[in-house]
Amino acid sequence: MSQRILSSALPSRVGETVTVAGWIHRRRRLAAVSFLILRDRAGLTQVILKSPETVALLDELGEETVVQVTGTVAANPQAPAGVELVEPVIEPLTEPAHTPPLELWRPAVGASLPVVLDHAAVSLRHPVVRAGWEIAAASLHGFRTTLDGLGFTEIQTPKIVGSATESGANVFALDYFGRRAYLAQSPQFFKQTMVGVFERVYEVAPAFRAEPHDTVRHLAEYVSLDAELGFVTDHRDVLEVVRQTVGGMLAAVADRAGTAVERLGITLPEMPAEVPVIHFSEALKIAGADPDEPDLAPADERAVGEWGLREHGSDFVAVEGYPMVKRPFYTHPQPSGPRWSNSFDLIFRGMEMITGGQRLHRYGDYVAALQARGESPDDPSYRAYLEAFKHGMPPHGGFAIGLERFVSRLTGAENVREVTLFPRDLHRLSP
Amino acid sequence: MSQRILSSALPSRVGETVTVAGWIHRRRRLAAVSFLILRDRAGLTQVILKSPETVALLDELGEETVVQVTGTVAANPQAPAGVELVEPVIEPLTEPAHTPPLELWRPAVGASLPVVLDHAAVSLRHPVVRAGWEIAAASLHGFRTTLDGLGFTEIQTPKIVGSATESGANVFALDYFGRRAYLAQSPQFFKQTMVGVFERVYEVAPAFRAEPHDTVRHLAEYVSLDAELGFVTDHRDVLEVVRQTVGGMLAAVADRAGTAVERLGITLPEMPAEVPVIHFSEALKIAGADPDEPDLAPADERAVGEWGLREHGSDFVAVEGYPMVKRPFYTHPQPSGPRWSNSFDLIFRGMEMITGGQRLHRYGDYVAALQARGESPDDPSYRAYLEAFKHGMPPHGGFAIGLERFVSRLTGAENVREVTLFPRDLHRLSP
Repeated sequence: MSQRILSSALPSRVGETVTVAGWIHRRRRLAAVSFLILRDRAGLTQVILKSPETVALLDELGEETVVQVTGTVAANPQAPAGVELVEPVIEPLTEPAHTPPLELWRPAVGASLPVVLDHAAVSLRHPVVRAGWEIAAASLHGFRTTLDGLGFTEIQTPKIVGSATESGANVFALDYFGRRAYLAQSPQFFKQTMVGVFERVYEVAPAFRAEPHDTVRHLAEYVSLDAELGFVTDHRDVLEVVRQTVGGMLAAVADRAGTAVERLGITLPEMPAEVPVIHFSEALKIAGADPDEPDLAPADERAVGEWGLREHGSDFVAVEGYPMVKRPFYTHPQPSGPRWSNSFDLIFRGMEMITGGQRLHRYGDYVAALQARGESPDDPSYRAYLEAFKHGMPPHGGFAIGLERFVSRLTGAENVREVTLFPRDLHRLSP
Repeated sequence: MSQRILSSALPSRVGETVTVAGWIHRRRRLAAVSFLILRDRAGLTQVILKSPETVALLDELGEETVVQVTGTVAANPQAPAGVELVEPVIEPLTEPAHTPPLELWRPAVGASLPVVLDHAAVSLRHPVVRAGWEIAAASLHGFRTTLDGLGFTEIQTPKIVGSATESGANVFALDYFGRRAYLAQSPQFFKQTMVGVFERVYEVAPAFRAEPHDTVRHLAEYVSLDAELGFVTDHRDVLEVVRQTVGGMLAAVADRAGTAVERLGITLPEMPAEVPVIHFSEALKIAGADPDEPDLAPADERAVGEWGLREHGSDFVAVEGYPMVKRPFYTHPQPSGPRWSNSFDLIFRGMEMITGGQRLHRYGDYVAALQARGESPDDPSYRAYLEAFKHGMPPHGGFAIGLERFVSRLTGAENVREVTLFPRDLHRLSP
């Protein structure tokens, strides 16, 4: 290969002879002239073909064939980015490509979701399909950068675990050298104990749920963005870190995936300097729901979202105080009313986006909480977890963000699979 | 909790009354005075206790109890960082802690590796044990930052896969909604096909090997740092990215984990501006090995490492051209001698650290390579992978770094488990 430059560098090279390389995105043959649109990771390049030999060569090479093109950069206000390549020499870098399973050059994705997913490795080349993941990748960057800046340490904890203590149901079992093991549903226990070591930790890693539901928002494997921090006063300190983290993720999306945002035609929300917070019992009132409901129905979340926009001009609302009965055993109760919890959901445009809260931190409280649920603190599956609390753990809390759900909320994707590279669900195990 | 500051902020607060919080690292009672050494994520604070009530309170609180201490910062050249806290008010944030399973305040780790691992959540609080992971976390940061700077896109690919094509052996099987599925041994196929989308990709994620070997360097689950890039001339372009990436990882370790490096007493290597490269056949000669050997034995790698140091003053040597018979089917042969491959190992101080190379990129070459190994390109497990090549893939290559192996090489840890938060192996499935 010759020394290649990216399409984005062409506007600064007018008059020069350069080499670009990429995929044949589209060919257009007109009477007097033919066009080749070349796609590389930075964008599209228009190449003008006039010589009969070059036109004939291009006839043989189908869309998606990888080629390098050496030519002269010419200004043309009508071309993408105002430049095009003329007098090109085209050299194929592979055999002529087969016809793609969907037309990648069309502005809209002209195939059904199952077709897109069945051929993911090729469909993701479509700029619109790719845009979803570009936003995901930028979100990951923003998550880590923000937490790095707040003194967090990255951890990587095992996904093969010896027991299915956290929920019991919906867990994948595997044969582990003749023993039964499970795929971790979350790094919850690990990240909490690591607060005892690093005080503030985060992890980005797969989480596994054997979800028997075939819905637009469930995946059997998803990317979980987890954080946990010690020395908090209560869940409000956790919420403030959520605010900064989501704000950082949005800023990273704007900064690193601006083209994707534009391509999808979405409007990024602004994270307010303070997220409006209402108590769960207030949220039920706003939604006009039964005050004894233990959870918010989708319609209730929508009502809360509308309230946030109306009263505070905010796309985000935090609902705190969810009933203890609906939260896991490690949840810290609300000191002023132990029916409620020191936990919250962040509602984004009327839909739950992130769950977080304060955890118990005293060993005695864990023993009592487990016993109250009919479980034994001597169960071997709790041994290592509870050991950390025996040996001193600070008040702490944390939160988790499902990457695919976060991105689908942001992009307005109807199906979480649209923003997942290779989704796994009840029916889909490949590609 | 009062507004807390970190131990590292104390030197700039002499004369002020401040609050710190952390773990009781050590208590020392002398005749005239008692000391409390408090540990937080930034380091240690010496607290001087004189009042009988405070001394009595501390007697009740064991090591590792979490407390907050409000006191006056006083200069003392003999104290850590030249300051200490005097006239303290101590407030426990938890119950008194149980006695830890190992003495965390001793400078050296005074427990055997099995004890350390059995109590990982507590042992990791020991500054020496923690140091290994601090270097790992910094390495992860350096990996991503370097590749971000080189235009790479982060990907996250599924760990549950439908077939065990890459090696067949040593794979964990699981029940996936009544079907048989497997845990991914590497993201190899996914990262290659994603070159067709993003050109340059990386992934940091767990990889799973059902290794039946109980050795100091095998784990059943490890963190794999993978990268793959398109539009390369050959494997030398990949090696240059390896050089920059490892250089970036080392710089990040120096920058972000300097205390850990000091604590472990290690000397970080320098990455040369150009890594010395020798051909596999030359490496055998240098090692005095049989020229027909298909691989380098550990003694051969040591000889190569010595050669690199002697001839080039380099801790790193790249050996290129490993025989095709020892490399996977997607490996690109060496054009000038197809018995050899366009692949390499990076040898660090006499031990293999990273494997990389150029891959095949033409669909026809994949068909031939699979058939030559007695496999069928029509096998459903290759369908999605080969589809990417049917539809145009550029010349490309990549590399993989096992995080735990990388860190153990760097720190000189004898056992890879020493630098893993919660190792998984033939015998160990918890904590």
